[in-house]
This record gives sequence, C-alpha cells and structure tokens, in this order.
Amino acid sequence: MSHTIKRGVFPGSFDPFTKGHESVVRKAIELFDEIIIGVGINTSKQYLFDTDKRLAHIASLFEDNPRIKVQSYTGLTVKFCQEVGAQYLVRGLRDSKDFGYERSIAQMNLEISDIESLFFMTIPEYAAINSTIVREIYKSGGEIHKFVTNPDLLV
Amino acid sequence: MSHTIKRGVFPGSFDPFTKGHESVVRKAIELFDEIIIGVGINTSKQYLFDTDKRLAHIASLFEDNPRIKVQSYTGLTVKFCQEVGAQYLVRGLRDSKDFGYERSIAQMNLEISDIESLFFMTIPEYAAINSTIVREIYKSGGEIHKFVTNPDLLV
Amino acid sequence: MSHTIKRGVFPGSFDPFTKGHESVVRKAIELFDEIIIGVGINTSKQYLFDTDKRLAHIASLFEDNPRIKVQSYTGLTVKFCQEVGAQYLVRGLRDSKDFGYERSIAQMNLEISDIESLFFMTIPEYAAINSTIVREIYKSGGEIHKFVTNPDLLV
Amino acid sequence: MSHTIKRGVFPGSFDPFTKGHESVVRKAIELFDEIIIGVGINTSKQYLFDTDKRLAHIASLFEDNPRIKVQSYTGLTVKFCQEVGAQYLVRGLRDSKDFGYERSIAQMNLEISDIESLFFMTIPEYAAINSTIVREIYKSGGEIHKFVTNPDLLV
Amino acid sequence: MSHTIKRGVFPGSFDPFTKGHESVVRKAIELFDEIIIGVGINTSKQYLFDTDKRLAHIASLFEDNPRIKVQSYTGLTVKFCQEVGAQYLVRGLRDSKDFGYERSIAQMNLEISDIESLFFMTIPEYAAINSTIVREIYKSGGEIHKFVTNPDLLV
Amino acid sequence: MSHTIKRGVFPGSFDPFTKGHESVVRKAIELFDEIIIGVGINTSKQYLFDTDKRLAHIASLFEDNPRIKVQSYTGLTVKFCQEVGAQYLVRGLRDSKDFGYERSIAQMNLEISDIESLFFMTIPEYAAINSTIVREIYKSGGEIHKFVTNPDLLV
Repeated sequence: MSHTIKRGVFPGSFDPFTKGHESVVRKAIELFDEIIIGVGINTSKQYLFDTDKRLAHIASLFEDNPRIKVQSYTGLTVKFCQEVGAQYLVRGLRDSKDFGYERSIAQMNLEISDIESLFFMTIPEYAAINSTIVREIYKSGGEIHKFVTNPDLLV
Repeated sequence: MSHTIKRGVFPGSFDPFTKGHESVVRKAIELFDEIIIGVGINTSKQYLFDTDKRLAHIASLFEDNPRIKVQSYTGLTVKFCQEVGAQYLVRGLRDSKDFGYERSIAQMNLEISDIESLFFMTIPEYAAINSTIVREIYKSGGEIHKFVTNPDLLV
Repeated sequence: MSHTIKRGVFPGSFDPFTKGHESVVRKAIELFDEIIIGVGINTSKQYLFDTDKRLAHIASLFEDNPRIKVQSYTGLTVKFCQEVGAQYLVRGLRDSKDFGYERSIAQMNLEISDIESLFFMTIPEYAAINSTIVREIYKSGGEIHKFVTNPDLLV
Repeated sequence: MSHTIKRGVFPGSFDPFTKGHESVVRKAIELFDEIIIGVGINTSKQYLFDTDKRLAHIASLFEDNPRIKVQSYTGLTVKFCQEVGAQYLVRGLRDSKDFGYERSIAQMNLEISDIESLFFMTIPEYAAINSTIVREIYKSGGEIHKFVTNPDLLV
Repeated sequence: MSHTIKRGVFPGSFDPFTKGHESVVRKAIELFDEIIIGVGINTSKQYLFDTDKRLAHIASLFEDNPRIKVQSYTGLTVKFCQEVGAQYLVRGLRDSKDFGYERSIAQMNLEISDIESLFFMTIPEYAAINSTIVREIYKSGGEIHKFVTNPDLLV
Repeated sequence: MSHTIKRGVFPGSFDPFTKGHESVVRKAIELFDEIIIGVGINTSKQYLFDTDKRLAHIASLFEDNPRIKVQSYTGLTVKFCQEVGAQYLVRGLRDSKDFGYERSIAQMNLEISDIESLFFMTIPEYAAINSTIVREIYKSGGEIHKFVTNPDLLV
C-alpha cells in the first residue's frame, strides 16, 4: 500500500497553549505523520502573551519530536493548511458549547476547500482548561502552572 | 373568517445577509402576509459592510416579492415591530447554542411587549453558515459566494 | 390578497396534555386559521392514560374555540398532516435538549414531504413541565393539577 | 455538633443586579449562614451602571437581612473568597449554555484553591433574564422594572 | 444564631453507585449536617444489581461517617425528603445533557413541595462515569473497579 | 518512516446503516489504512432489520473498497477493537445532544483500554438522519431511500 504523508494542522491563537492543547497534539501525532501547530495571528486582536514567546513556548514542549512543528500564520486557516500540504484540521472538543461553533467552521471550511476536520476529545483532567480563564488568572496575579506546562517560557 | 394582516419582522445585523437568512425569509413568507427584514443599526458597533450596501443587497434578493420589505431601525426590536404593525418576530435556529440566547430574548420581549417569537429551523445545507465566519473569510481574501447570494452587491 | 387556509398540526402522544402544550396551542391559534391537535397512537407503546380520555380531555380544554380540533392518528405524522390538509407542524421548544431531536425530525419530514415545521418557545412558567415527570408524579400518588388543567377528565 | 460558619460568595459584575440574581441569593441564604455578594471590578471593562450605584442598589435590596452583605473586589474571585473567609462560590444556572463555562470556572477554581462551587437553578419566571439584554433594553430607552427591582436606585 | 439541622437527600437508582456519585456525596457532607442517600426503587424497573447489595455497597463506602446515611424509598422523591426531614435535594451535574432534565425535575419539585435542589459539579476525573455504560461494561464481562469503589460488594 | 497499519473500528447497531453513517466511513477511509464497520449485536435488544441483512447491506455499499470491512460482534466494543487490531474508534457527531454521551463512552473506553476515539462531523445534508426516525418512517410504511442507500437489500 503506497502511503501519502498524512499531515494535520492544529490551529489556534494559543494565548497561552494549555495542557489541554498539549494533550490533543500528543493524541494526534499517534495517528498523523506530521502535526503542524498553527498559531493564527490576527492583527486586529490584542494578545496577552507575545507571539514570539508563544511560538517558543510551544516549540519547547515538543522539541523532542521532529514530527511536531509550530508555525505562525495570518489569513484563512484552510489556506495555511494548503500551503503546508495538510489534508486535515485537528481540533479538541471540550464540551457541547464548543461543538456548535466548531461544526460551523468545519462545514464552511469544506465548502471553500477540501480540508477535512477531525476531532479528539480533550482528556477529562484538562477538559476544563480554558485559555480565557487562564489569562484572567494570570492577569490577577494567580499561578497558572497547573494549566500550562513551563509557563516561565511565556514571559 | 375575517383576516388581520399577519406581519412578521425578521431582525438582525445581517453583516452580511447569508443564504441561511435568505432561506428563513423564503419559508416565513409562505406563512405570513408580509415579512419586514429589519436591519438593526447599533451606533456603537462597527460593521464590515456599509448599511446602505446591506440594505440594497437584501432588497435586490427579494425585489420580485412585494410582500417582503427591508428597512433599517435603531433602538428596541419590539418597538420597531410595533411601529411597523408586526405581531411576530421571526427567527432562524441553527443549533442548540443559538437556542438559549434566543429563548432569553423571546421571553424578555414578551415581558415588555406582546410581540411573540416564532422559529424556523435553518435548512441543513445552510445551517452551518455563520455571519461571523463569513466576515473572517471575506477579510482574509476568501470567496464568500457559497454563503451569500450576489456578494458583489455588498461592495 | 387571496388567502389559503393556514392549517397547523400540533402532534404528540400527550400522555398527558400539559399546561405547556396548552400554552403552545393558544399561541399558535393566533397565527393559524386552524390548529389540529394530533394525538399519535403507537400500538406498540403503553400509555398511562386511555386514548379516549386523552382526546376528551384535550377537546374540553378548547371547546370554546371551533378553530382548534383534536384527532387521533396512527402512522407517519406528515401523512396525517397531508390527510387533514395542514401545511405546518407546530412544535414547542422547552430547552436545548429538545432541540437536536426536533431538528432531525423537522428536516427528515421535509425530505419526505413538503410539511414545514414551526417552533414556539414554551412560556417560562410551563417550560419545565415534562409529561414523563408528570406521569411519575401521578403514578406515585402526587397531585398533578399544577401541570395539567382539569386532570379529573383524564381518569 | 460544632458548627463552622458556612459562608458563600455570590460573584458577578451585576450590571445590573437582576431579579434572577436576587432569587438566587434568597435561595442561598436559607442554606448558608452568610452570603457575600461580590461585585467584581475589572478596570479594563466599561460598565453601564456606576459601581457605587450598583453596590447601593444591591445593598438596599437586602437591607433587612444582616446575613447578606455586598462588597466590591478586584482580582481573582477565589482570592476574594479566601479574604472574606468563604468556603463556597454560589452560582445560578439558567440554561445549558451557561453550564459549560460555569463548569470550567468551577473546576479551575478547585485547581488553584479549595473553594467549592455550588449551583442553584434560577426560578423559571426569572430564568430568561440576562443582564446583557437588560442593558440593551435600558440603552434603547425601554423599561427595565420587570427585570430589576427598584431600578431607580441605579441612576 | 440558632441552627436548624440542614439535611440533604442525594437520590438515584445507583445501579451501581459510582465514584462520580461518591465524589458528590463527599462534597455535599461538607456543607450539610446530614446527607441521606436515597435509593429509589421503582417496581416496574429491572435493576442489574440487587437492591440489598446496592444498599450494603453504599453503606460500606461511608461507614466511617455517621452523618451519611443510606435508605431505600418508593414513590415521589420529594415525599421521601419530607419524611426524612430534608429541605434539599442534592444532585451532581456532569454535562449539559443532564442539565435540561435536572432543571425540569427541580422546578416541578418546587411546584409540588418546598424542597429546593442544589447542584454540585462532578469532579473532572469522574464526570464521564455513567451508570448505564458501567452496566454495559459489567454485562460484557469487563472490569468496573475504575468506576466503582469496591465493586465486589455488589455481587 | 516505518508505518504501523492504522486501523479504525466504526461501531454501531446500524438498524439501519444510513447515508449519514456511510458519509463518515467514506471520510474515515481517507485517513485510515483500514476501517472495520462493527455491527454490535446485543442479544437483549430487538432489531427491526435482520443482522444478516444489515451485514449484507453494509458490505454491498463498500464492495469496491477492500480496505473497508464489515463484521458483527458481541460484548465490549473496545474488546472487539483489540481482537481486530484496531487502535481507534471512529464516530460521527451530528449535534450537541450526541456529544455528552459520546464523550462519556470515549473517556470510559480510555480507562479500560488504550483505544482512542476520533470524531468526524456528519456532513450537513445527512446530519439530520437518525436511525430511530428512519425506523419509524419504515414501520409507518414510508419511503426511506432518501436516508439509506439501496434500502431494498435490507428486506
């Protein structure tokens, strides 16, 4: 059986990249030949953590696995997938509130491209982790190492 | 049987008016005598497409049916209904995430007026279309004609 | 403007017909010319209340309004709609759990017929009323008149 | 049996404090020895009603019950709980859309503290009340006394 | 301050009583003076595990805490609460699917009694545990000790 | 890069196997080397269509693709996966109501095995198809070819 490289993009703003995100990538790399973590940059948005720091932080988490890469991108996620030769978008699902929006994006992506979306369930211990709440905790001076591996790399 | 004119308002910001919205109006006009598409203008919000263009775009889609009108309004949606003599608000439901917010609005509207809300399910092919994602695609230079009829009229 | 009779079917097993159901019918009759409450009989199901009692109970609630009728049926709901000349199915939505199943039914009905589904929100006071729980209360000897108008007609 | 004081914090921005919020506090005080309504102040957020007015409004609603207090706070909610000696966060649940976010916050709070979260269902008549929609109505010149007790105290 | 005994009933069929149920009781006993685990017996239902075994199993889990009791009951849950002098029903919430049904029951209980319902979130590690699936695993010869403490007491 | 065979099981009762199920298999086979459609047989359940017919029907749909197999099984789904050497369970997600139960099963499966679950979204046109409703339509004498490919093979 011939074998095309199966490549998946795991997209997000990752402000910051949490243990929940990390668990999805570790699941996905078992199935895919290559996972590219795509850090989407929206110039009209304010991020709490610098893009460079976020990229370096993510890279450090997976530096032992050359099949996991991290890259920033602007513009449409499906265009980024096409540029890097990925056939799949990989997403984590935490709860049913995520579900509706994820479905809309997945279906609209299929209308404008042939990029298929694939979903993993976030593992229970990390299913509650929400980047928005992590940022709130961080801004209020709270500890975030329960939710983010090596948070020191972010600052 | 005497017959009062049954008039429904289909309200929204319609930035832009998608094929999903369009399908709801085409369903509603079968039941109502008149449908008024109410383009709500909130002066503290930024819209991607000009109000004039949005109004002209919507009007062009229904120019063959004099029972479907389009009009902009500011202020409370139920007051607009009362001004135009509508007894009903018409809404499309896409998924269960929509549901909770729609219910709150429907019930609060009944507290402050006698305007009843009525829901149609968006047809499956268009249920995934979300104006927010359409705007993202448009801003990233993607094609939106799969989601919006005659998008050229918007620019 | 010529005017076709707008007729809606409000289907269910109504075991029993609750104040929640009642509120949906009272909303729907304002919009439709005629509402037919269709009591679906599934011969392989056990009902707590007799079909005859259920029909009589519902009929008594609306005896002052000749535009509201009640009728039992077997087989497909959309076929019943066609037989009675209804163009619409009328449904109440209580919460987001209802939503998914209702959408499936609505869309499959449109695949096999041209019967459109229309949804009203159950009013807040009655949104919690669930026939299954009413039956549990009744079977355990509890009072159900808070949830059902004239429950004496059922027994 | 010795008895530690059971103290709960009911946190929110309360912009404004609605009859829905009020009903949760009235339920909670039956179970707790003391309820502290914590008005969270986020300096980067704009509020429609002044903090002082919001505090005075809430205080007036419960002035007959010395076991219900109101206080503003900044920073992490769980830190505020610890400062005031509360073991519990009290929350109202309106619908399933609330649920997912509430669960994330509850679980992350337990990761960074030992503050447990406890949920009451909002009573049906008030379950639809949503502060965001109340603000919309207020800004559009509508009446809000159906949703807020003594709204005059807010302005 | 005088102090009424705060008593809560934690009701269910507990077929079997899982680690998820256990975690809710351990949370609730911190707040209540007494928790009564009510094992509801519905004579028209088949249970996988004998009622006696289920009662003994639950009792063994809490034998070190005299404030936690276990008792079977038939009939309405709120009547059982009244008989044992409980003012509260204690429930665990796992996900938004639970939410709708729980809300209906909570609100209908308040219509027919003055028993208030109180909700704790199941802890993340146990939020996925579902008695139905535990039974499936058991019936298929799978191990259930990951989901149930001391399952040997059930057989 | 060495390559282990990636094998996924798509489990269900498939009573009947719908176009929705079919679309998930066609998506999954693009990612996996082999998909085994597992028809779960529960001896205590009544099926509308014979197991042999269901197996033959499914086999006929994929007879041109030797990488898609169909097989019946009894007992735990994860044991079946282990027996056929599959590392993954493949599931389709239609709406948020599915989500909660699917997550419970996925997480409990990971507790008792190392079988990971992977989710595809059902395509919009088929997202509404529900085997339970298909059976209702069939039993009422309705046409099901809109929901099932080659339904003649089932009877």
